[in-house]
Amino acid sequence: MADSSSADRIVADLRTWISSAAPGAQLPPSRTLVARYGVSPVTVQRALRTLSSLGLVEGRPGAGTFVRARTVARVQDYGWQTAALGAPRSMPTLSAAMRAAPDDVIALHSGYPDAELLPGQLVRAAFARAARSDTVLSRSPAAGLPDLRAWFAAELGAGAPADIAPPAAADVVVLPGSQGGLSAAFRALVGPGRPLLIESPTYWGALLAAAQAGVQVVPVPSGSDGPDPEELSRAFAQTGARAFYAQPAFANPTGAYWSRQRADQVLATVRRHGAFLIEDDWAHDFGIAADPEPLAARDDGGHVVYLRSLTKSVSPAVRVAAVIARGPARERLLSDVQASSTYVSGVLQSVALDVVTQPAWRTHRRHLRGQLAARRDLLLEALREHAPLARVEAVPKGGLNLWVRLPDNTDPAVVARDCEAAGVRVAPGNEWFPAEQAGAYLRLNYSGPDPGAFGEGARIIGRVLEDHRGR
Amino acid sequence: MADSSSADRIVADLRTWISSAAPGAQLPPSRTLVARYGVSPVTVQRALRTLSSLGLVEGRPGAGTFVRARTVARVQDYGWQTAALGAPRSMPTLSAAMRAAPDDVIALHSGYPDAELLPGQLVRAAFARAARSDTVLSRSPAAGLPDLRAWFAAELGAGAPADIAPPAAADVVVLPGSQGGLSAAFRALVGPGRPLLIESPTYWGALLAAAQAGVQVVPVPSGSDGPDPEELSRAFAQTGARAFYAQPAFANPTGAYWSRQRADQVLATVRRHGAFLIEDDWAHDFGIAADPEPLAARDDGGHVVYLRSLTKSVSPAVRVAAVIARGPARERLLSDVQASSTYVSGVLQSVALDVVTQPAWRTHRRHLRGQLAARRDLLLEALREHAPLARVEAVPKGGLNLWVRLPDNTDPAVVARDCEAAGVRVAPGNEWFPAEQAGAYLRLNYSGPDPGAFGEGARIIGRVLEDHRGR
Repeated sequence: MADSSSADRIVADLRTWISSAAPGAQLPPSRTLVARYGVSPVTVQRALRTLSSLGLVEGRPGAGTFVRARTVARVQDYGWQTAALGAPRSMPTLSAAMRAAPDDVIALHSGYPDAELLPGQLVRAAFARAARSDTVLSRSPAAGLPDLRAWFAAELGAGAPADIAPPAAADVVVLPGSQGGLSAAFRALVGPGRPLLIESPTYWGALLAAAQAGVQVVPVPSGSDGPDPEELSRAFAQTGARAFYAQPAFANPTGAYWSRQRADQVLATVRRHGAFLIEDDWAHDFGIAADPEPLAARDDGGHVVYLRSLTKSVSPAVRVAAVIARGPARERLLSDVQASSTYVSGVLQSVALDVVTQPAWRTHRRHLRGQLAARRDLLLEALREHAPLARVEAVPKGGLNLWVRLPDNTDPAVVARDCEAAGVRVAPGNEWFPAEQAGAYLRLNYSGPDPGAFGEGARIIGRVLEDHRGR
Repeated sequence: MADSSSADRIVADLRTWISSAAPGAQLPPSRTLVARYGVSPVTVQRALRTLSSLGLVEGRPGAGTFVRARTVARVQDYGWQTAALGAPRSMPTLSAAMRAAPDDVIALHSGYPDAELLPGQLVRAAFARAARSDTVLSRSPAAGLPDLRAWFAAELGAGAPADIAPPAAADVVVLPGSQGGLSAAFRALVGPGRPLLIESPTYWGALLAAAQAGVQVVPVPSGSDGPDPEELSRAFAQTGARAFYAQPAFANPTGAYWSRQRADQVLATVRRHGAFLIEDDWAHDFGIAADPEPLAARDDGGHVVYLRSLTKSVSPAVRVAAVIARGPARERLLSDVQASSTYVSGVLQSVALDVVTQPAWRTHRRHLRGQLAARRDLLLEALREHAPLARVEAVPKGGLNLWVRLPDNTDPAVVARDCEAAGVRVAPGNEWFPAEQAGAYLRLNYSGPDPGAFGEGARIIGRVLEDHRGR
């Protein structure tokens, strides 16, 4: 009589063997198995039947038992996961700005500059140097390489007035990209369920990070000169918020650039409410007719938490950013960053530092300014000529984008879909609004590939808008 | 009469000028300022007095007004931040394992293998190749480079039995290190305030990520063959938890290695409770007398979420890891990872893929196995000889650590402090316990620099323990 626990043991053992065997491999003959396991032939037969019923082996009459070809077509039911996971948090989906475009599409949707705008030679040389150095095999300190931290501090400190203590290297925490800095800042300085004031419209990545951190987003309308200080003050007072996220220079998507006076008013408002300004200086290297003057350089009271990324201007493969903060806020940020990313690759850090400390980096940035100006003006001109229904309300003094107003009652998502069908990809404006849209907008990026196609792109947008008007 | 708003305007303007001027630079003479601003001399004097009272300028009689040297010694009061930040979340501090050690210290505390255990030539060559490729200037897709995702899927799928569908490249999300994967998994699969079962003791980085995610940690005791399935089942039933975090192969810190039978029992328990096993296969490349057999390879029902990092075995500068999950869980994970890190540098991904697909990588791993065995045995022998009070209860079959039991009533933190004072750095065991310690332990890492000093290190530990016994 067959011993069922012995049979189970043989099944378990043979499953292990089968898992590493090639499909079609022959199993040892029954008599070998009888001898090996010290069981009866009936027990061996029982084990082989079990394996066969599991679809793992097949008998071929007169030949023996063989490992079956792996079956992978089984349809899985993951329904149980829905119960285990519970209701999803409401998270914005990934922006259109992050989608890769096929080569034959005119790409005005991306958030990243084309390779021709990057310091390619510098980046290649820096990676080659890093490959020969010890950093390829070493671990970076948690807060970042000391020299890179000092460079970030010095860059910001260069804008500090004489009566303001400039930031120190110790105030800097290096991050694997600024998205991680947004998440960390919202978690560490605001926290789940607590209010965060945020410009409307604002960077969609910040809205994503805010949703992930579970903070309660409170939109503050913001125009081409930033938010109205009285509105901002009211929002602080009404919600009890202790933090305001903003992009004072060349805001994404609007291109807004705060005047010095407006910046001082916002800083005073933030101070009066005992709050933080989370200043996202994403376009620090993308000035055209103006240069960013970080508010963080004019505050040494710990009110401004400053985010600066090198990813967009050095290379999308060099994901290095920094957050600069003073006081307990810095400790909270560092502890959060460590819990979520431990440290940033020392190679990426040393490549970033290598690039930005080369004399050729200054030359590159001067050249970049001219390229961005020419691209911006080319796209503006093309829109004026071919898409008169698309209105640019303010010519941006820097950054990478035009914020284009569409006729009222146009649905930007439908316009974007129709444009894409006609061969040009654009980013619908709704993704940048934390709440109601102030109007119908598209964001058009002039730093993408092939500015020679801007004319054709504008022509398509113009046609699509005409069609929509006719509806 | 002086016009106060004109004076303010001049103050603001000159502050901008001063901020970019060198200390000692001379301001334009008063008559120049009168003409430039179209104001009275009294207004100019008023503005200069204001600048002087701010400490920004100084008058030198008979010479003019000059920019003062920057004062940076001001002591800042960041007390307001405490109110703005609210009570800190209770977060474990960074582990002793992350501290950098001076060169003259015997380092048995680190969690990272020494450079001599890394495939240095492969890593250098891979970085040099990457420097010449287009990846240095391109953006990676959000979920990772397709080839690297396919490699991770194939590695795990190689262990799948014939009746289990192996994972596909589409199930893989590439991460900037496994710490980010822990954070993402705890946030996306468990969520704030909800229970997470966790082995005790367990990896301190997981405790840190759990604290950051705000999940409620429920310790499940785990011995050298993993957790007792009945205890685990009870913990699921009592807490309603839907996830269990574990390290089935060469657990950090204990070195525990689950038998196949135990693994099957745990998998069955997890399935029965409609739950996830978050399997951290951190030591996949560090087998000595055994090899990891991921549970994830034997589940295609979406119950196992698999974490695999290349950072420790390829290089600490190549921060690349992957999470492999199926069903809605993968979507939730991807959305969380994108919100916190957008994407991983394509250079690091292509370097990782380059290294692990070289034939020399297999040779390296074979060689590494021998090195780890020799180092483990050397440290074991040294402890046996020189530190008989330090007891290794189970010789680990892989991994990087010995988990050393100290005499009862010893305080591991004090032992660690005394060892450090005597020249050897060790990690006190308490950092690895989510709740009460099951005993007094040290974690000793045998993959650090200079195994030649293991004897001396053991001698010091032995002396410190003797001293403690005498107290």
